[in-house]
Amino acid sequence: MSAIANPDFAREVRASFQRQGAMTLIRARMPLIEHGVVEIHLNHWEGIEQQHGYVHGGVVAMVADSAAGYAAMTVTPPQTSVLSVEFKLNLLAPADGDCLIARGSVVRAGRTLIVTQAEVFSVHGGERRLCGLMQQTIMAIAGKPEK
Amino acid sequence: MSAIANPDFAREVRASFQRQGAMTLIRARMPLIEHGVVEIHLNHWEGIEQQHGYVHGGVVAMVADSAAGYAAMTVTPPQTSVLSVEFKLNLLAPADGDCLIARGSVVRAGRTLIVTQAEVFSVHGGERRLCGLMQQTIMAIAGKPEK
Amino acid sequence: MSAIANPDFAREVRASFQRQGAMTLIRARMPLIEHGVVEIHLNHWEGIEQQHGYVHGGVVAMVADSAAGYAAMTVTPPQTSVLSVEFKLNLLAPADGDCLIARGSVVRAGRTLIVTQAEVFSVHGGERRLCGLMQQTIMAIAGKPEK
Amino acid sequence: MSAIANPDFAREVRASFQRQGAMTLIRARMPLIEHGVVEIHLNHWEGIEQQHGYVHGGVVAMVADSAAGYAAMTVTPPQTSVLSVEFKLNLLAPADGDCLIARGSVVRAGRTLIVTQAEVFSVHGGERRLCGLMQQTIMAIAGKPEK
Repeated sequence: MSAIANPDFAREVRASFQRQGAMTLIRARMPLIEHGVVEIHLNHWEGIEQQHGYVHGGVVAMVADSAAGYAAMTVTPPQTSVLSVEFKLNLLAPADGDCLIARGSVVRAGRTLIVTQAEVFSVHGGERRLCGLMQQTIMAIAGKPEK
Repeated sequence: MSAIANPDFAREVRASFQRQGAMTLIRARMPLIEHGVVEIHLNHWEGIEQQHGYVHGGVVAMVADSAAGYAAMTVTPPQTSVLSVEFKLNLLAPADGDCLIARGSVVRAGRTLIVTQAEVFSVHGGERRLCGLMQQTIMAIAGKPEK
Repeated sequence: MSAIANPDFAREVRASFQRQGAMTLIRARMPLIEHGVVEIHLNHWEGIEQQHGYVHGGVVAMVADSAAGYAAMTVTPPQTSVLSVEFKLNLLAPADGDCLIARGSVVRAGRTLIVTQAEVFSVHGGERRLCGLMQQTIMAIAGKPEK
Repeated sequence: MSAIANPDFAREVRASFQRQGAMTLIRARMPLIEHGVVEIHLNHWEGIEQQHGYVHGGVVAMVADSAAGYAAMTVTPPQTSVLSVEFKLNLLAPADGDCLIARGSVVRAGRTLIVTQAEVFSVHGGERRLCGLMQQTIMAIAGKPEK
């Protein structure tokens, strides 16, 4: 990973996360922000389920998309917004268990485009099982104000 | 499109949709269920936003995933569950406007795997703009009980 | 589709195609270049097969990637190069038959990124069957010289 | 990784690779076959280039698709064919250099579907640079004869 472009990245990422109403809605938390890596955690509750009682694939996408997008933001210069251009998610196993952990990381950071990955684990007691794998393209945009 | 395998598809799809807590959470509606095509509509509200005030890319994925997955379910035999194997979503434009319309449709239905697409439009007054395009693989599973 | 940005697009696309050694290698042709749409045709021969005698999935990707990338190039300003950022291909049916037709088209053209699609058909006598569906992101780069 | 389902996997994979005319056409080699991991190597030559003199993105897809598909085949029972359902490839950097190395590996093996990944590196003297990253879904089919 390259040198740190924004020494204040953790504060900016946290502030942006708090502006995502959708993360509040599903009760997601962001307990880990490192240079190039962000984790979002999500307890299992009824409001995020699909028809079999697993977490909805789109909700898995939400936490994977945000975790990987914010991982990208940790490597951008100050006051840079990140926007998802596209992502592809494989759902490998039912997203059940007590909690989901989405771990986003930067694969390659270009000037305009940043390629990231996210692994999503379902947590069963002390055990983690990989249930989702995402590959994502992020666009970095300087000076686009957040709400 | 092939012959109708389940004359009761609309009722089964509607019942399954109502079991998706995640669709209730984001306030999504399913006003159109036809053989091979399903639409999910979603009014814009603060609870589904990302940091710029657009609808969160993961929420766009949620409605695209459900619309295309239920489009697949309209062509399966009775009592068949559909599970997303994977999907890929391009976010073409900001998901802003008054409302989103996700239109899922079946591209090719095999016995086990069904390939689908979803277009997501943002509605601005009377005008529709394409803001998301998804390609998805669905697995059909006979006799898996829903909750 | 927007106005024509390069009145000479067909000539530039054809010249670029002729620089793709890989297209010569597999014996691909480009019989159709329109504003926003390009077709690449490929006769079935042993050199492009996989282990069952179908056309190799990667070769399907080659013609889909080039057809959609050159469709993007038809809508860019003069002397603009197109590079594939990423693509996702579903293989819907065996790529058999006498010939493949890859039809690429522009979904949305931004200033930097262009989102495209390609359909790949296998031709059996007079009948076309959809055997591949691709979604692609292209980056337009001004003034990058081709070989 | 699970137990070895086919003690003869290396011989079956090698025989199948030799039936892929497309691998011969581009001059690809398969120097590494392990349980869950396969590598395909490809020297740079003019016949596989795109318009800037890099290796064509579709050729990158070919070696990634075959490497990951054969990685899947190393974990299947004897006489099982593997078919690509879909894949998604990010092209992270120009595929230049002396040689490409595509390294495919199994992420999760189900009974019917196997999810794999491939990393593609360009080799510059003694240095490897990641230039492609692929996520793939494979279908395992028992008893389908190869040519």
